[in-house]
Amino acid sequence: MNEDFVVTPWEVKGRVDYEKLAKEFGTSKIDEKLLKRIEKIAGELHFMLRRGIFFSHRDLDWILEKYGKGEKFFLYTGRGPSGHTHIGHLIPWIFTKWLQEKFDVELYFQLTDDEKFLVKRELSLEDTTNYAYENILDIIAVGFDPEKTHIFTNTEYAKTQYKLALKIAKHVTFSTAKAVFGFNESSNIGITFFPAMQAVPCFLPSVLKKKNIPCLIPAAIDQDPYWRIARDVAPRLGFYKPAQIHSKFIPGLGPSGKMSASEPKTTIFTTDSPDIAEKKIMGAFSGGQATAELQRKLGGNPEICSICQYYYFLFEEDDEKVRKIFDDERSGKILSGEHKKELAQRVKKFIIEHQKKREKAKDRIEEFVLRD
Amino acid sequence: MNEDFVVTPWEVKGRVDYEKLAKEFGTSKIDEKLLKRIEKIAGELHFMLRRGIFFSHRDLDWILEKYGKGEKFFLYTGRGPSGHTHIGHLIPWIFTKWLQEKFDVELYFQLTDDEKFLVKRELSLEDTTNYAYENILDIIAVGFDPEKTHIFTNTEYAKTQYKLALKIAKHVTFSTAKAVFGFNESSNIGITFFPAMQAVPCFLPSVLKKKNIPCLIPAAIDQDPYWRIARDVAPRLGFYKPAQIHSKFIPGLGPSGKMSASEPKTTIFTTDSPDIAEKKIMGAFSGGQATAELQRKLGGNPEICSICQYYYFLFEEDDEKVRKIFDDERSGKILSGEHKKELAQRVKKFIIEHQKKREKAKDRIEEFVLRD
Repeated sequence: MNEDFVVTPWEVKGRVDYEKLAKEFGTSKIDEKLLKRIEKIAGELHFMLRRGIFFSHRDLDWILEKYGKGEKFFLYTGRGPSGHTHIGHLIPWIFTKWLQEKFDVELYFQLTDDEKFLVKRELSLEDTTNYAYENILDIIAVGFDPEKTHIFTNTEYAKTQYKLALKIAKHVTFSTAKAVFGFNESSNIGITFFPAMQAVPCFLPSVLKKKNIPCLIPAAIDQDPYWRIARDVAPRLGFYKPAQIHSKFIPGLGPSGKMSASEPKTTIFTTDSPDIAEKKIMGAFSGGQATAELQRKLGGNPEICSICQYYYFLFEEDDEKVRKIFDDERSGKILSGEHKKELAQRVKKFIIEHQKKREKAKDRIEEFVLRD
Repeated sequence: MNEDFVVTPWEVKGRVDYEKLAKEFGTSKIDEKLLKRIEKIAGELHFMLRRGIFFSHRDLDWILEKYGKGEKFFLYTGRGPSGHTHIGHLIPWIFTKWLQEKFDVELYFQLTDDEKFLVKRELSLEDTTNYAYENILDIIAVGFDPEKTHIFTNTEYAKTQYKLALKIAKHVTFSTAKAVFGFNESSNIGITFFPAMQAVPCFLPSVLKKKNIPCLIPAAIDQDPYWRIARDVAPRLGFYKPAQIHSKFIPGLGPSGKMSASEPKTTIFTTDSPDIAEKKIMGAFSGGQATAELQRKLGGNPEICSICQYYYFLFEEDDEKVRKIFDDERSGKILSGEHKKELAQRVKKFIIEHQKKREKAKDRIEEFVLRD
């Protein structure tokens, strides 16, 4: 892997070369032809597809072919509840909601409180189960269809999942898991079992509905390795291999890497007060010049400016307006301060809206949640 | 380990030197002093204690000390449901029933359908779960107190157990599990997690009842390694280390090794018809001389005669009568054929009685079983 960046399911560091990453992971790029096929079915293209935020896939063409023949897929995505939800997490969820709407499909959403407990020395199982609850509020707030959305926390849905996990686990050696996830002899025997639990929702709907149903997983590309195990095992258990659609990472407000809960100063949580969110934006890294005068003269670089990236990834759906924002940054027409102020207002508005829905979600849990 | 015999949780081969085994496993022998303490509380000594069938322990003295101070323990034992129950399995269960009665304590009984599925290539999970059901009928037939006995199959009680298994697993590295159980890189990621599931019932009653309760595990000595993990983890989770009381193995009807379901000709299953059981006894290995004449002249060896061993382990509670049976074998006073005929009658009677209770147990499942 390129020395300048690191991408594993647990770590994303440096500025990621996505072309290279797709090549190294062995995934396919989403090309124009595929975009056209999606647009034909959906009636439009989500801006995350137009901009290549979702840029890579496995078997998405096959999923569309099946769909065209009347064989619907289901969506599967997940969240590791090691803390509160941040805005970066919402990106695949917002896109997943779009997929659910446009393709009219079911969604299975797994919260891996087991995984996060097993890998985080400082977290108790009660902590991660509690974060799962908090995260579920954010998931519901995104606006998924309660008739078609099934959210479950692993420890609360363990009886149903454990049986299928055993059937998966029987086909996965420690040696394979080690190669895929980088386990070693010091890994605990819980986390080495976890890939089986993570693979369960790829096949669970097929078991529950007693017919083979194609699965499409929208997730950030760092999660790709998990599905190699599921894809490997699928034919041996008589299931379809899960297909995938991969996103890039939303940058943090700092100079590099993805937004991460472990760097709270450069991360906007959905539970931050609007004022805190504003402060974080105002203190963000813009990559601009040292003085206003130089900025006006030399301009900035939108590719590394976290403010521009925020508009691009989430806060401006209109491509023309994004182009203008990028141009103004590049030409020095707009200064970082003004730029930040405007974004801060949008983020505040977004947070206020989200938190209202999040509050209402507390009474809607039972509409969405699966438990044993 | 001695080259002439092999004892692991999965294999018992050769004629076992129990003195040596206890030394190698690092367990303590049950001595006269300990037997007296048990007798004082129980009012009698079970013949399996008198004869040293239960011969070894860990922390049994501590369990009795706690008991003497009014702190009751609970019993935990288990069964790997890879097939039907055989008479060898009943030995620790019958003894466990005696312990339950005499000490008036709760019993937790785990059926590891997960384990047997994971290690047996030819068995499906449905097979092992079904065998668990069949085995439960035998457990109930032994006569445990329904008020104080809790029987559970792992896949049916996975939600409750998984949480505690995670807490155990976080403290057990692959390296430790490998050293204790002989796992290797080709072991599947389910079986390497299983030691955590097997350790769960050591602590589960303490969790359920919200106080630390001592645990005593009666089991054949080959199961000892499983509890090393539980004993290791216990103090880190704030629980008592589980104590143990170990039995020898009931020999098969063949010349060596313990009775094992994988050798059906020398194994009497509780589901065998009385006639089949009789036939197996009549065909058993007695280690006698080549002809009746020689047998009368030279005598036999009760130590290797499976018929004598059957009386000793289960079918004759009176020590004096066992002594006479052994003496008659040694002196050649009784011939194998007569010997077998008499035992066959006892075994048939036992089987008929057991099968009646087993049939009744079908309506009593709910009195005993824990499910999520």
